[in-house]
Amino acid sequence: MAHLHRTPLPVPEAVERVMQYKRKGGVERKHLHESGGRVLAENVSATHAVPPFHKSPYDGFALCSADTKDLSRENPGTFRVIETVAAGHRASRELRPGEAVRIMTGAEIPQGADCVAMFEICTTGEDQTGHPVMTLKRRMDAWQNVIEKGSETEQGEVLVPEGSKINPGVQALLATFGYSEISVYKKPLVGVFATGTELLEVDEPMEPGKIRNSNASMIQAQLERSGAACTYLGKLDDDFDSCYEAVSSALGDYDVLITTGGVSVGDYDLMPDIYKKLGAEVLFNKVAMRPGSVTTVAEHHGKVLYGLSGNPSACYVGYELFAHPILQHFMGNTRPYHTRVQAVLGQDFKKANPFMRFVRGKLHYEEGMVVVYPAGMDKSAIVTSLAHTDVFIVLRGGTRGYSKGDMVEAVLLEDQTGQTQF
Amino acid sequence: MAHLHRTPLPVPEAVERVMQYKRKGGVERKHLHESGGRVLAENVSATHAVPPFHKSPYDGFALCSADTKDLSRENPGTFRVIETVAAGHRASRELRPGEAVRIMTGAEIPQGADCVAMFEICTTGEDQTGHPVMTLKRRMDAWQNVIEKGSETEQGEVLVPEGSKINPGVQALLATFGYSEISVYKKPLVGVFATGTELLEVDEPMEPGKIRNSNASMIQAQLERSGAACTYLGKLDDDFDSCYEAVSSALGDYDVLITTGGVSVGDYDLMPDIYKKLGAEVLFNKVAMRPGSVTTVAEHHGKVLYGLSGNPSACYVGYELFAHPILQHFMGNTRPYHTRVQAVLGQDFKKANPFMRFVRGKLHYEEGMVVVYPAGMDKSAIVTSLAHTDVFIVLRGGTRGYSKGDMVEAVLLEDQTGQTQF
Repeated sequence: MAHLHRTPLPVPEAVERVMQYKRKGGVERKHLHESGGRVLAENVSATHAVPPFHKSPYDGFALCSADTKDLSRENPGTFRVIETVAAGHRASRELRPGEAVRIMTGAEIPQGADCVAMFEICTTGEDQTGHPVMTLKRRMDAWQNVIEKGSETEQGEVLVPEGSKINPGVQALLATFGYSEISVYKKPLVGVFATGTELLEVDEPMEPGKIRNSNASMIQAQLERSGAACTYLGKLDDDFDSCYEAVSSALGDYDVLITTGGVSVGDYDLMPDIYKKLGAEVLFNKVAMRPGSVTTVAEHHGKVLYGLSGNPSACYVGYELFAHPILQHFMGNTRPYHTRVQAVLGQDFKKANPFMRFVRGKLHYEEGMVVVYPAGMDKSAIVTSLAHTDVFIVLRGGTRGYSKGDMVEAVLLEDQTGQTQF
Repeated sequence: MAHLHRTPLPVPEAVERVMQYKRKGGVERKHLHESGGRVLAENVSATHAVPPFHKSPYDGFALCSADTKDLSRENPGTFRVIETVAAGHRASRELRPGEAVRIMTGAEIPQGADCVAMFEICTTGEDQTGHPVMTLKRRMDAWQNVIEKGSETEQGEVLVPEGSKINPGVQALLATFGYSEISVYKKPLVGVFATGTELLEVDEPMEPGKIRNSNASMIQAQLERSGAACTYLGKLDDDFDSCYEAVSSALGDYDVLITTGGVSVGDYDLMPDIYKKLGAEVLFNKVAMRPGSVTTVAEHHGKVLYGLSGNPSACYVGYELFAHPILQHFMGNTRPYHTRVQAVLGQDFKKANPFMRFVRGKLHYEEGMVVVYPAGMDKSAIVTSLAHTDVFIVLRGGTRGYSKGDMVEAVLLEDQTGQTQF
């Protein structure tokens, strides 16, 4: 039996062994509005200069600075206002000496003008013929109050590199530069089986000796949070032949296959044996951690197969540590690992840790410090702790418990940043 | 003109004024697998005890502790193994004295048994008739190695209260307790207009004097990040009558209406005047902050109308400060405001702040401290800063700049936690 030969592998080595089989998925074109949260598979470049023309930052009058060089309070100058240009419009002709154009914020500076006198410093009126005029009492410099073409970004500049996650600000850039479609990495297709004769589906009534299948729903939700595409393939009885059949026939259809259950030590220790019969290489079947020590991961022709524990907490932890980074890499994320931070432990955790422990916890911010609290240690927390979990508190093996105020490491599960190393 | 009477309102008062018009949206039933990220509109309770039966935590033999009371190394006892019970199965009959049942992890303890002897401490063999037997050399206590029915959670206990966000752990609980459907708060329907004659749509070629409409795409992405449902209603020219017509006819179809542009001081200062003609109450049209000082918010028969700036940064900030919490409350979130934390400023920011400033920034964690960096202050950052933004760095008004290492407040834009107060 496989379990007789199990040697617990330290967590970092287990992660490294899985990540040897990381691969990037394909690329697809997505409409700008369907690209949120995906990863760019191409650079976003400035397809035109910004601003694309000399632009007025204010409401005022555009004119030629040379026309103003002798002006002062004692020697005001009067300009003929030939037209008004609003944002989105252009002046109808080039400005001539002695002329000004009333210009609105964001509008293009007319040909022949090279500065803008703000509305507040100008006096408006009419000349003898009733034509609008403007009087100015100071000199203007060339390019004063003009946002010059290309002054913010030159055409061709790479603004957001391939491998970046698309957030609302990136979507604004895509729109600015006319990317109505964009190349993004595909989502991995993940197939999920739950194994266990004791399992009932969510909509089945309770039966003696049975429990409802919660891991399949949880894993689907975790996959959704990771940004992957998930298909639930159903539950399997603890029977070698039917499990083997189901797993081997699904293998071709998915980028990654996850099963829950069927990995604990005992007579029904199915998954490791199924992996062997498939000809898959078992990367490990025991990890030096709690919970999740019986997590099994295998590799078959470059595809990673996860045999997660049937215990909900162990299943949850196994997914986030070993599956999340593979899926992030597949989706093109250059920072595939969950962000890990130094944090202050908010309450005592006095359990001894012979192995590295991933305590489900809750993140708080207190006066600039990151503080983490174990997600409830009372009775019903066994059931509810995952509902209140947004971090793992990492407690090293070989310790006799931790005290409130100790510095610990925390793995952030809902942070979008990620990091490049485990 | 409206702008003549504008008095800048401090940000907290502006937020408070908007939040007077918060209202909760309706409730809808969602399938468990479509409920991720939504907010519970009902309590999740334990519909049965956990575990639902006395359960074995180990592989071993279930037997009656009274049968073992005289056993020791010197006085071993031999039990007749009458059957094997795997998880999901039940023993076929009650245990009698002198009998044991081989039991697997997670299986139900048979009637008549009250303890489990772990496999490792038992010796197995056969009696003279070839029937399997098990020999034990120690006494067992009643309920030793038994997870008693209801020991984790009693039936009826409220596990996750109404108003909580549904994460993968909550979905696991929903599955455990048979909630294949669940009541959640509806998403608000938000209509978005972009105003500005200078605007081109994303798929239109560039034209002299025009720029592409990036705010509509950005706002849609921000709405998506907030969890709202968005309909883009198109762009409008800077023309009072057509804008008034479009806004007033859309008003009935959406829970919230957002326009971008048409609020800056000038001849084309449309939105405040449109709100007045609609009979809407303008809550404010100037806020003592940068960027976004011209943000206008109005209320019409309980609906909130946002006139955000046409400047992308101002539009982005105005949305997150004034629209996000209204939408979160609509969706039932009891913590509708973005999480605000004390953070260390990672680099100098030497600009004077006559008004409160919301600097677009990036969050880092450094040795347990939250450190924030302005999202680039070089030339092209004017265009790209929003693409690198996941926090606002809040710099108080009336200051002459900040130095690296100063403690500042940061608004977390991608955090899922939220807080109850602004």
